[in-house]
Amino acid sequence: MSTVTRARALTHDNINPHVKRAQYAVRGELAVKSEEYRARLAKGDKTLPFDHVISANIGNPQQLDQKPITFFRQVLSILENPKLLEHEDVLLNALGYKPDVVERAKWLLSKVGSVGAYSASTGVPAIKQSVADFLERRDGFPADPADIYLSIGASSGVNTLLHIICAGPETGLLVPIPQYPLYTASLDVLNAKCVPYFLDESSNWDPEISNIKSSLASARKAGTDVRAIVVINPGNPTGATLPESDIRDIIELARQEKLVIIADEVYQTNIFKGEFVSFKKVLRQIQRENPDGKFDHVELASLHSISKGMVGECGHRGGYFEVCGFDPKVKDEIYKFVSITLCAPVIGQCLVEMMVNPPREGQPSYELYKQEYDQTFNSMYERATALYNAFVQMEGVECAEPQGSMYLFPSIKLPQKAIEAAEKEGREADEFYCLRLLDATGICLVPGSGFGQKENTLHFRTTFLAPGTDWVGRIVEFHKKFMDEYR
Amino acid sequence: MSTVTRARALTHDNINPHVKRAQYAVRGELAVKSEEYRARLAKGDKTLPFDHVISANIGNPQQLDQKPITFFRQVLSILENPKLLEHEDVLLNALGYKPDVVERAKWLLSKVGSVGAYSASTGVPAIKQSVADFLERRDGFPADPADIYLSIGASSGVNTLLHIICAGPETGLLVPIPQYPLYTASLDVLNAKCVPYFLDESSNWDPEISNIKSSLASARKAGTDVRAIVVINPGNPTGATLPESDIRDIIELARQEKLVIIADEVYQTNIFKGEFVSFKKVLRQIQRENPDGKFDHVELASLHSISKGMVGECGHRGGYFEVCGFDPKVKDEIYKFVSITLCAPVIGQCLVEMMVNPPREGQPSYELYKQEYDQTFNSMYERATALYNAFVQMEGVECAEPQGSMYLFPSIKLPQKAIEAAEKEGREADEFYCLRLLDATGICLVPGSGFGQKENTLHFRTTFLAPGTDWVGRIVEFHKKFMDEYR
Repeated sequence: MSTVTRARALTHDNINPHVKRAQYAVRGELAVKSEEYRARLAKGDKTLPFDHVISANIGNPQQLDQKPITFFRQVLSILENPKLLEHEDVLLNALGYKPDVVERAKWLLSKVGSVGAYSASTGVPAIKQSVADFLERRDGFPADPADIYLSIGASSGVNTLLHIICAGPETGLLVPIPQYPLYTASLDVLNAKCVPYFLDESSNWDPEISNIKSSLASARKAGTDVRAIVVINPGNPTGATLPESDIRDIIELARQEKLVIIADEVYQTNIFKGEFVSFKKVLRQIQRENPDGKFDHVELASLHSISKGMVGECGHRGGYFEVCGFDPKVKDEIYKFVSITLCAPVIGQCLVEMMVNPPREGQPSYELYKQEYDQTFNSMYERATALYNAFVQMEGVECAEPQGSMYLFPSIKLPQKAIEAAEKEGREADEFYCLRLLDATGICLVPGSGFGQKENTLHFRTTFLAPGTDWVGRIVEFHKKFMDEYR
Repeated sequence: MSTVTRARALTHDNINPHVKRAQYAVRGELAVKSEEYRARLAKGDKTLPFDHVISANIGNPQQLDQKPITFFRQVLSILENPKLLEHEDVLLNALGYKPDVVERAKWLLSKVGSVGAYSASTGVPAIKQSVADFLERRDGFPADPADIYLSIGASSGVNTLLHIICAGPETGLLVPIPQYPLYTASLDVLNAKCVPYFLDESSNWDPEISNIKSSLASARKAGTDVRAIVVINPGNPTGATLPESDIRDIIELARQEKLVIIADEVYQTNIFKGEFVSFKKVLRQIQRENPDGKFDHVELASLHSISKGMVGECGHRGGYFEVCGFDPKVKDEIYKFVSITLCAPVIGQCLVEMMVNPPREGQPSYELYKQEYDQTFNSMYERATALYNAFVQMEGVECAEPQGSMYLFPSIKLPQKAIEAAEKEGREADEFYCLRLLDATGICLVPGSGFGQKENTLHFRTTFLAPGTDWVGRIVEFHKKFMDEYR
């Protein structure tokens, strides 16, 4: 070995194989390429066949057109610079801040101290209380702040829960397919097993209990210690909302089979069709219906986030999860685990507080809040509908009506020649399609293979956040050309 | 089994054993107890022998007395509420914002878009460029933004690096003892090995190269695949700053032995004695001195944070790390790993930008910035000195003069009777001492056993952030009584 070409300590061959195995298509090759296109355009490159990039790969509302809620941001401006409170008259008169903005900022500051200080590891106690109050209003059952953990978006909550649950390579978690790839990626990093259960596309992505049971049985037979089931409701990427009966079935299954339920409920306000019912509410109802206590130890962890809904504050990285029925000694380990990373961003915690406790009717900021909230909601629905109307007219594309979350997840049938061309490049056919779309139009989607899908089916996921209809037209036009080329 | 007492899926016996093994004393039993005392006092409890709790267990400046830098927070207030820019005259005239505040906010908004949007996974490109510019000014050598990763405080940077490096139970990292327990805790969670090297207390906590070499040799002999060395400079908990000669020795060792250097430099501005020299600077100098290229592939990752120094913005969870000499394919895996958690808080990223690019001489906000910066610096030094003066007069206590970071780490000799009393409770003697101190005074320290220490030595770590001298007097008084009781 020459001294000049001293080998490194770390090579792609010797680093953590579990990290290497993980896949996260939402920010994978296509997203990276789209950022390169964006950078080229910003530098004045005129050689591309489009003049801007549309990131429809990730639910990032404020990157596109969604405006932050004024009340939230006014409060945050005071939390960041509490000296503004020395000029209350200027805030109220010259800047138009309402009195409840000032009041909320003062209250939060009295509970938080400085937003520049670490909070307690699981979050600011008063904010956890506020979350508990919200859960009680939402579900009609009490919640205990000691069961609530503020997190760095919902992602870090999932990371914490999986770290606790996964004890070794034999641990398995039931994960819906298609799913948000955070779950499979985190299980890969933790060297634990994903036990897939397929959602039934023909029946509005329903999680058929018989499917789940058979997945569970075969995994256990093969020696996997299946301990938990992930449910994403409303669905990502599917957008479907679970009816209460399905939630009941899953809770009954969890009881029978000793499974922790991880209920990812971050899209709970993004619903166009159906109604959101929380796992917590149904669990408490079932517990009340069963005074013999046989549901008392069902373990549920439910997650929420400020990144989605009409809040859309992804960049502030806030969220929480609530646990029910967990062993106190397990909760001690959750405490220790989160304490190693010190605390969630305090400004994000304050946003969680305002999300769960927004201005109420009769309060000075209510009217504007309501108006902004409704406008965002309606505008998302309009965009989703425009996109849906375009998709259903496209050859070989089938798409369910917009139901919720921030996504449409149409299936596509591609010509054999396209499938072969993809194979030649060593790609999945839907990945090949999305890559061609990006190169031709600057629109970045995520292929269905990034979420998992039944064999011999192809899909893509798109957010419906981007404004305007021009980009929708670009997809239609591309699709036609693509189909003609490979027919 | 009764149906009523259905066992849970998760018990303390079956959850992740690696999480269970991890210890993090900075927020361990004592910190939890201190928070309980704080809550009791807040509720009006008069039965405690003290009327407030002092959290000297964690470097959390703004929880105590440190004021945020006005320029930073004014800019953040605009980033949170960009509508303030519609009232520029009010900002400038009625609220006293300087023109460079408005200018910086506009610039950051032009680069970030909304602080409520996810940024690129490794951080906002313009902020990474700003960090690179800072590193070039600091070290006199160019830095590449593509080598910079913005993180959720330095802790998440460490977490990322260790996830990449640790490939299995046989992977080992050299870690100084005493150390900040993030390192041992993260290695435990990852089921990798801590290979301790002891710092020499008698020689100002010097990392003797011969010690490191012998630790490395025995670990490798025992089959451990030692891949990296952690260096904390300035030291935590020791406060000691490494002279350039030590840094050179460590880089030479890393080259010879193929070790990645992880340089934790979060206290780089908290220096009272000595001078900070970055690993990056020394590495580049050595590379220039060795045109044969034999140092070209030395792998260095250095970390910095907004939580420490005169910034002290812990709650905003911002930081970055820079890698040098890493294999591009390894960097691809770092990208993928951080993309799974989407991005660091964008407001924290903006604070990183301002930390590395504060107001400069001649700019409108410079004078106040300088005054605030110096005042915080001087005040920390005064507090450290007051504490030091108290410690050196205490029986059995030896303490080095304040050197840097935010801590003093005195050694204590306790009477045999106290050691036996601790043993009876199944505790380390220094933990026993700190617990008694907390119960008697409300002051929360961290026992030396939480950082690691040579056998038959005892220490504690205290921050010197709390204002006033009253609490110092309480420690002195407690110590006297404790020694008398157990003599």
